Amino acid sequence: MAVAMNMNWKEDQEVIEIIKRIKEPFKMTNRAFKAEDTCVTVDGRSIGNGHFGIIAGPCSVESRSQIVDVAKAIELSGANFLRGGAFKPRTSPYDFQGLRSEGLALLRAAKKATGLPIVTEVMAVKTLEDHADDIDIIQIGARNMQNFDLLKAAGQLRKPVLLKRGMSATIEEFLMAAEYILSEGNDQVILCERGIRTFEKYTRNTLDLSAIPVIKRYSHLPIIIDPSHATGDSRYVESMALAAVAAGADGLMIEVHNNPETALSDGKQSLTPVQFNAVMEKVTQLAKIMGKTVG
Amino acid sequence: MAVAMNMNWKEDQEVIEIIKRIKEPFKMTNRAFKAEDTCVTVDGRSIGNGHFGIIAGPCSVESRSQIVDVAKAIELSGANFLRGGAFKPRTSPYDFQGLRSEGLALLRAAKKATGLPIVTEVMAVKTLEDHADDIDIIQIGARNMQNFDLLKAAGQLRKPVLLKRGMSATIEEFLMAAEYILSEGNDQVILCERGIRTFEKYTRNTLDLSAIPVIKRYSHLPIIIDPSHATGDSRYVESMALAAVAAGADGLMIEVHNNPETALSDGKQSLTPVQFNAVMEKVTQLAKIMGKTVG
Amino acid sequence: MAVAMNMNWKEDQEVIEIIKRIKEPFKMTNRAFKAEDTCVTVDGRSIGNGHFGIIAGPCSVESRSQIVDVAKAIELSGANFLRGGAFKPRTSPYDFQGLRSEGLALLRAAKKATGLPIVTEVMAVKTLEDHADDIDIIQIGARNMQNFDLLKAAGQLRKPVLLKRGMSATIEEFLMAAEYILSEGNDQVILCERGIRTFEKYTRNTLDLSAIPVIKRYSHLPIIIDPSHATGDSRYVESMALAAVAAGADGLMIEVHNNPETALSDGKQSLTPVQFNAVMEKVTQLAKIMGKTVG
Amino acid sequence: MAVAMNMNWKEDQEVIEIIKRIKEPFKMTNRAFKAEDTCVTVDGRSIGNGHFGIIAGPCSVESRSQIVDVAKAIELSGANFLRGGAFKPRTSPYDFQGLRSEGLALLRAAKKATGLPIVTEVMAVKTLEDHADDIDIIQIGARNMQNFDLLKAAGQLRKPVLLKRGMSATIEEFLMAAEYILSEGNDQVILCERGIRTFEKYTRNTLDLSAIPVIKRYSHLPIIIDPSHATGDSRYVESMALAAVAAGADGLMIEVHNNPETALSDGKQSLTPVQFNAVMEKVTQLAKIMGKTVG
Repeated sequence: MAVAMNMNWKEDQEVIEIIKRIKEPFKMTNRAFKAEDTCVTVDGRSIGNGHFGIIAGPCSVESRSQIVDVAKAIELSGANFLRGGAFKPRTSPYDFQGLRSEGLALLRAAKKATGLPIVTEVMAVKTLEDHADDIDIIQIGARNMQNFDLLKAAGQLRKPVLLKRGMSATIEEFLMAAEYILSEGNDQVILCERGIRTFEKYTRNTLDLSAIPVIKRYSHLPIIIDPSHATGDSRYVESMALAAVAAGADGLMIEVHNNPETALSDGKQSLTPVQFNAVMEKVTQLAKIMGKTVG
Repeated sequence: MAVAMNMNWKEDQEVIEIIKRIKEPFKMTNRAFKAEDTCVTVDGRSIGNGHFGIIAGPCSVESRSQIVDVAKAIELSGANFLRGGAFKPRTSPYDFQGLRSEGLALLRAAKKATGLPIVTEVMAVKTLEDHADDIDIIQIGARNMQNFDLLKAAGQLRKPVLLKRGMSATIEEFLMAAEYILSEGNDQVILCERGIRTFEKYTRNTLDLSAIPVIKRYSHLPIIIDPSHATGDSRYVESMALAAVAAGADGLMIEVHNNPETALSDGKQSLTPVQFNAVMEKVTQLAKIMGKTVG
Repeated sequence: MAVAMNMNWKEDQEVIEIIKRIKEPFKMTNRAFKAEDTCVTVDGRSIGNGHFGIIAGPCSVESRSQIVDVAKAIELSGANFLRGGAFKPRTSPYDFQGLRSEGLALLRAAKKATGLPIVTEVMAVKTLEDHADDIDIIQIGARNMQNFDLLKAAGQLRKPVLLKRGMSATIEEFLMAAEYILSEGNDQVILCERGIRTFEKYTRNTLDLSAIPVIKRYSHLPIIIDPSHATGDSRYVESMALAAVAAGADGLMIEVHNNPETALSDGKQSLTPVQFNAVMEKVTQLAKIMGKTVG
Repeated sequence: MAVAMNMNWKEDQEVIEIIKRIKEPFKMTNRAFKAEDTCVTVDGRSIGNGHFGIIAGPCSVESRSQIVDVAKAIELSGANFLRGGAFKPRTSPYDFQGLRSEGLALLRAAKKATGLPIVTEVMAVKTLEDHADDIDIIQIGARNMQNFDLLKAAGQLRKPVLLKRGMSATIEEFLMAAEYILSEGNDQVILCERGIRTFEKYTRNTLDLSAIPVIKRYSHLPIIIDPSHATGDSRYVESMALAAVAAGADGLMIEVHNNPETALSDGKQSLTPVQFNAVMEKVTQLAKIMGKTVG
């Protein structure tokens, strides 16, 4: 049977029986397969099953002082994880492509200074092979949501994967992409909605917050929201961050830059550390009201 | 000049000067034209400028007992306004088209029983001419957002208009549609986001909550959210209602039916009175935390 | 039964039986209801069932010399019908709204000079009541595709209706809108695809030419294409006009202006008479190869 | 300067000067960079610059007899290239993933039997390293259009690349993806439009034929059309194939299966060899009328 052929744990006949009874095409990702919420934990910091996680940091790692300063600032404001791009997917081959392995080293330095686990995007199987050990949570970006070789490779790791929804992926396709990772044996997956492509032009993408209750209904995986990429405008981040908390999200991913005006990428959507601190106060208060543990 | 030609109040030269300096195509709708938030008030109940309004009721008026019972129930739960369709826009000419003037009479009866002002959709200029006096807030539906003759006729009334965003209208087009009403002299306009059309299929439309901060930035008009039509599924209404409050909305429009399973239209997305009461408790609590006056 | 209630010809029990057996929600519009292609004829000029019709003219009627000159030019190039907007749907209330009844009079003058029947948009039931006699083919625009009162009023006329697809209407909704007209007793309906709203920005809309074979399969009504509004750019009109012919369309609607650079609306997408003549030569040749009668 | 850093041919100062003057973000892909149409040739068979190419074959390679039989049939009908998937991108990890290297061997057998060069999709850099020599034209699929590592690796090859448009990619992003390949030194790129994602449900995607004149205006690269994936329905393939020819496309990619009802993937959209032969007769006739050389 097709399902069994692709599972690493074919010894478990009972599991296969459950899977065959699930009517949706996503099986191990399905709440019918596992009723309780999945909680992803790194270094004692958790996302999911009542734990609200906050990932913050710059779009791109640009220099030691930039990433260390931002890491210290967001840690003070209560963020749990540090994000920063070392390998950057850019529409143009002529745009800044990231500091690559040098960027990873700077992220390690920032982790050393703050204790914050690192979330960074990986675009290629080769990068996973070379650098997975230096990363705490592997991010797979929207453009690679259906890069099935990369999904399978990430599924063979035993470390958390943050999977972003493709810009025109349906929720079903999103869960099927997660299924590629789980079916290889890695169930430490965090889903991230970051805006879908529509006709609207006042925001860069359209943030689909209704994905939160839909995914909560169909899947046990944690779902977090990236209001920065979704809106493309720092002025709308607070409003969408609070809405995400109220809608039931398990966390947020927010861009913070110590000097947005000089950022090498996505400056327009980045908060300053001071702005981020203000957002965090409200987010934390609201998350507690919603019954979540923050941090 | 084109602007002057279309304004009823051309005597005011200063206003024209302000309008000419506004760079966006929407002028009187613009926050640059009027800095303070607009508040729409009917019978002492307000929406906007710190007042959070709740409009609830069935998709269609079906019978006297149905509309009166629902009106009493939502009034007990704290709703401020009663909605109910008498003239129904239906994709099929063979579907139930509404009770029309009989439906309006039933809405009046429900108002008499509860004191709740009536919000109901009008699809034609003729209906406005015949029945505007029987309606407290004129609703213009998504399909008629660019029915310019209807917008102009509503602009010539001196009573509130609830304007729904078209299903593929940009925010700019939405504000331009409101401009048609304001430019005729009626500034009592409430905007309503009700989901836009995208490729996603797990929800009927995609609720664009980012429209809230965008509209708050560009316009002084109140903006409310209809989570029922947006998601098309009663199971997602609470989550999206709370998200709307947190995002800064000025109110909600929620479908409630005393027996959703037998509803003549849109039963799947209607809350029961009991479910509505539970949502209202959370919405009211959150709205107060957001600094809004409810009711 | 619902169907019967909405039909003017309820005497025919057999028809109702056919309708009840059609599984799609559109009934009288359905090819299962009427197998042979519908042909719409005005003054001996036909569209549909092998007849390829060409409607051309300016976006807006601007002056006597403009509309008469354009009419003469397009008639020489082989167009069968003259289009020209008198009542203009404009996103902004401050934009040119059309010459209205004066525009209709100018269209009559152009018809007198050339013999070309007139196609013009009507946005309101009142306009139909006042002016239907002056128009040969009533155009209902994309923004009014679900203005059901207007559709019903057009259905009660006994003259052809050109119905444009709404900018985010599915093909099923498009056929249901036509059904409103047919169910009132008027089966002289021409469908017109004019581009749908997508994320793409290099064209104003995305022309959905696959609507041609889909509509040919499901409906007997003629389907024509408007490459001018779809692309919004005169440089792409020839390519899309030829594609429409090859795909099996029953006609074209093309904007032609004697001086596009000074046009009061949509100049960028208008062909000059010389450009139109060149397009017509190729279109005519290709339509004949496709087995159609032109003119 | 960023452009120079990413170019392999930085010795040519004049080229850099031209690139800097091109205002669009795509440079080497731009018609302003190279005025004449690019022609891609394999084994004496050409696509572009007046040569109309036809790529046909099954979605997936399933068996020796299947692929050899289809190859012989399409060769008789006049196709120039054989397509067939060996590495299959599938939404579900439990669906048939392709015969992989065994599939490539079967494609070589079919080439040996017919002389038809092979077009097949590659999803991973590793596959390129292992198997590029066995493939005549490397296909990069819609889901990998922004898999930048794969694009760069394909750019370092010296063999043709068929790049499919992503399902929600703008034309500009599509040309930027091609730019990744050209900027690495490989200018043998064929673009392929295969439908974009919209709200319409009667077709699997919406075929954007207006991409043809837009790309012809902005780029020198050949553009072909895949009506099979675009419509998802074999009944609409002929209509869209003819429309593509009339719109000015440089070729077609059509799915043909000797037994569509038993196909392991995409059977619904596959033509039988007999149907394909009928389409080919019309396509060939029309391409000649459009001034193209077929074969």
